[in-house]
Amino acid sequence: MKIAVLGTGTVGRTMASAFGKLGHEVTVGTRDPSSTMARTDPDAMGNPPYSAWAREHPEVALAAFAEAARGAELVVNATSGASSITALEAAGADNLAGKILLDIANPLDFSRGMPPSMFVKDTDSLAEQIQRSFPTVRVVKALNTMTAALMVDPELVSGGDSTTFVSGDDQPAKKTVTELLSALGHRDIIDLGDITTARGTEMLLPIWLRLMGALGTPMFNFKIVR
Amino acid sequence: MKIAVLGTGTVGRTMASAFGKLGHEVTVGTRDPSSTMARTDPDAMGNPPYSAWAREHPEVALAAFAEAARGAELVVNATSGASSITALEAAGADNLAGKILLDIANPLDFSRGMPPSMFVKDTDSLAEQIQRSFPTVRVVKALNTMTAALMVDPELVSGGDSTTFVSGDDQPAKKTVTELLSALGHRDIIDLGDITTARGTEMLLPIWLRLMGALGTPMFNFKIVR
Repeated sequence: MKIAVLGTGTVGRTMASAFGKLGHEVTVGTRDPSSTMARTDPDAMGNPPYSAWAREHPEVALAAFAEAARGAELVVNATSGASSITALEAAGADNLAGKILLDIANPLDFSRGMPPSMFVKDTDSLAEQIQRSFPTVRVVKALNTMTAALMVDPELVSGGDSTTFVSGDDQPAKKTVTELLSALGHRDIIDLGDITTARGTEMLLPIWLRLMGALGTPMFNFKIVR
Repeated sequence: MKIAVLGTGTVGRTMASAFGKLGHEVTVGTRDPSSTMARTDPDAMGNPPYSAWAREHPEVALAAFAEAARGAELVVNATSGASSITALEAAGADNLAGKILLDIANPLDFSRGMPPSMFVKDTDSLAEQIQRSFPTVRVVKALNTMTAALMVDPELVSGGDSTTFVSGDDQPAKKTVTELLSALGHRDIIDLGDITTARGTEMLLPIWLRLMGALGTPMFNFKIVR
């Protein structure tokens, strides 16, 4: 499948690499490819510059948001939550129309320090904001409840004995995403329901952040025992 | 230990009965004991009237909030979130002073229908509101992330292979609560940190409610795999 991964941070790189290994044709989307490649310093999270990562992943292309989205059958939103709508507008409603959007972003607001607060919650969600902004896009929320390494290799913790959630209004889109998740090793995938159920998974972030503090590592995951 | 359980609903009855079985001296607190005992209809959740339950649990006393709190060494807040502060004010700051308060309530707002929204979240929590209102009370948030039956018998699901969270500013109080939880069968108890971490567990309610819908039962629990 032709997949565009919007976002050049840890989540974007991790998803792009994993989908490439599964044999998909992956293009990472960014605002300005030449400035992305020109950066030589680590990013705000301490990741090596994108150009260094790109040299080790020659199978992954880089393009502007619009070009990446135009050529894709499925688009992954791996941008930061605060810039997701802007990035998707740059990708262009026409280039996204009718396509599946796997939305991994979380609506975190770091402007008041740590822990971040949420700029939308409870009575709305980032996934719903995206769905309303791009009505023909088939938004599926998933993977936003775990650290990037586990998104593509859940077996790294407890042999993969954990739960992954999907939310969305479009059943065939959720089926396609569920198949992609299964290919990545996710075994217990719960369909929570329509896109409003993304409020539930986005609101896992506050306890996720406290658990990272209490456990001293992001290498943990949620499991729903029943 | 002398334990007051504030609240006559499912959570209050379940906690009172379980602590009684463990040999504690339990008094349920209510606004007006005579009117609680006079009710003959099922309550809003369909539970039998309190008087019927009380006949089957003669070991559990019933008293007004203030009297129940006055005689207790540890107090359980099993009232609805929206009425918790009012109930604790009725219990009286003097009667609560210096005591451990195990806070199980969730800040759910049912006024706009189902699913409920939250009347406090993200940048504050009900547990913090209670702690600020009663500064000398040693508030410990716990058990608010699971259905009542699992609070007192976590082995009912997956043999008890699930996680229970505690939040609070007072370490000895958290230790006492953790011992009580262990006696009830809770095996994996994570201390998330200070009382502000209750924001994380209270914000589990939105996904908990969606999971109950998706799974068709409240008999599930969270486990943190790591």
